[in-house]
Amino acid sequence: MRELFQQELKELQDDLVEIAGLVHQQMADAVTAFNKSDVELAESVIARDDQIDTAVKELDEQAIAILARQSPVADDLRLVVSALRISSSLERMGDMAEHLAQLARYRFPDKVVPKSVRPIFKDMGKLDVEMAAMLVELLKTNDLVLAEKIRDEDDRVDALHLSVFENVLSEGWSAGAETTVDATLASRYLERFADHAVSISKKVTYLATGEWANSGA
Amino acid sequence: MRELFQQELKELQDDLVEIAGLVHQQMADAVTAFNKSDVELAESVIARDDQIDTAVKELDEQAIAILARQSPVADDLRLVVSALRISSSLERMGDMAEHLAQLARYRFPDKVVPKSVRPIFKDMGKLDVEMAAMLVELLKTNDLVLAEKIRDEDDRVDALHLSVFENVLSEGWSAGAETTVDATLASRYLERFADHAVSISKKVTYLATGEWANSGA
Repeated sequence: MRELFQQELKELQDDLVEIAGLVHQQMADAVTAFNKSDVELAESVIARDDQIDTAVKELDEQAIAILARQSPVADDLRLVVSALRISSSLERMGDMAEHLAQLARYRFPDKVVPKSVRPIFKDMGKLDVEMAAMLVELLKTNDLVLAEKIRDEDDRVDALHLSVFENVLSEGWSAGAETTVDATLASRYLERFADHAVSISKKVTYLATGEWANSGA
Repeated sequence: MRELFQQELKELQDDLVEIAGLVHQQMADAVTAFNKSDVELAESVIARDDQIDTAVKELDEQAIAILARQSPVADDLRLVVSALRISSSLERMGDMAEHLAQLARYRFPDKVVPKSVRPIFKDMGKLDVEMAAMLVELLKTNDLVLAEKIRDEDDRVDALHLSVFENVLSEGWSAGAETTVDATLASRYLERFADHAVSISKKVTYLATGEWANSGA
């Protein structure tokens, strides 16, 4: 019984790693579609979001089944509850990738943002994809050094997010309202994606240390 | 033991109702601050967000303690797990109210959005506040008619959200980039607030009917 239970917990973790892998791939493709105005890739990201939603729903049902059957306590209980929270953040990260791809698709064959801010968006996208890759590793290994790295990268994303607005609000910004709207939304999606990565890394830290990290933002 | 357990579940529900009440008040004040450019009210909304975060954290700890002590199954288990999910959405709704108040504060003494779109924002804000009030009632009474009404109001919020963009992208839009950014973000916050209300009402429906509603968006 105990052995089966440990096996079930292990499967829950494996499922989280798998979903995080899907999210990583989605954001990598969304960023490429956004940067290169690749409408086919954008459409494939949009089509694949359902896979993440389904996988999250299955994981949640599995977690609830474990709670019902095994009545875990202490560390095991925290693990299952955290899995539910982490899956919810991963689902939102998938949504952010989808939203970014939607912007790329709407503006095709044009690029979403003007040349002057493209390097900033490229850096933000690169950081988001890196953070997602680190998240996969963090969920696999529970190596808390990765949680710290994710927080550091988030600080860089936040700085880039601010610099998007500095550019948009500068006198040199000559783009029309549509481009201003899209740049605002794209920057927000990339920033929220990074926030969710931090939120997950705090939950993994909680699991390892027993202390709830501040879940705000 | 069983009686104590039912009492604990009742307290969990009461706490959700209380937090939803805080969120309702926050959004009502944020919308007023936004519409009237009331910087003091905006600052009080921003200051009070911590109360929601703290209340959510306490509720979550309480829910986890119940899972550990009582090992609930079936409907009781679903109730506790749903409380965790609902609290997380309420926390985000509080964040949206705070973000709206932040926009009002930054732009004070100016209003955030130009005259041409103020009626749209007023309607969106009114709907959001109404939805939050219905959410309080829904959590208190489990009256699923309210869940339906919340979904209907969300459709109206979505339509207004789209009409903000139609205005921003129309030839009549003469506002500068800063205003375009703020209108975009404000509209997004109001729309997300409504999405979370729908997401909670789906969870309440799940509790009553046993069927998971689609948790996407």
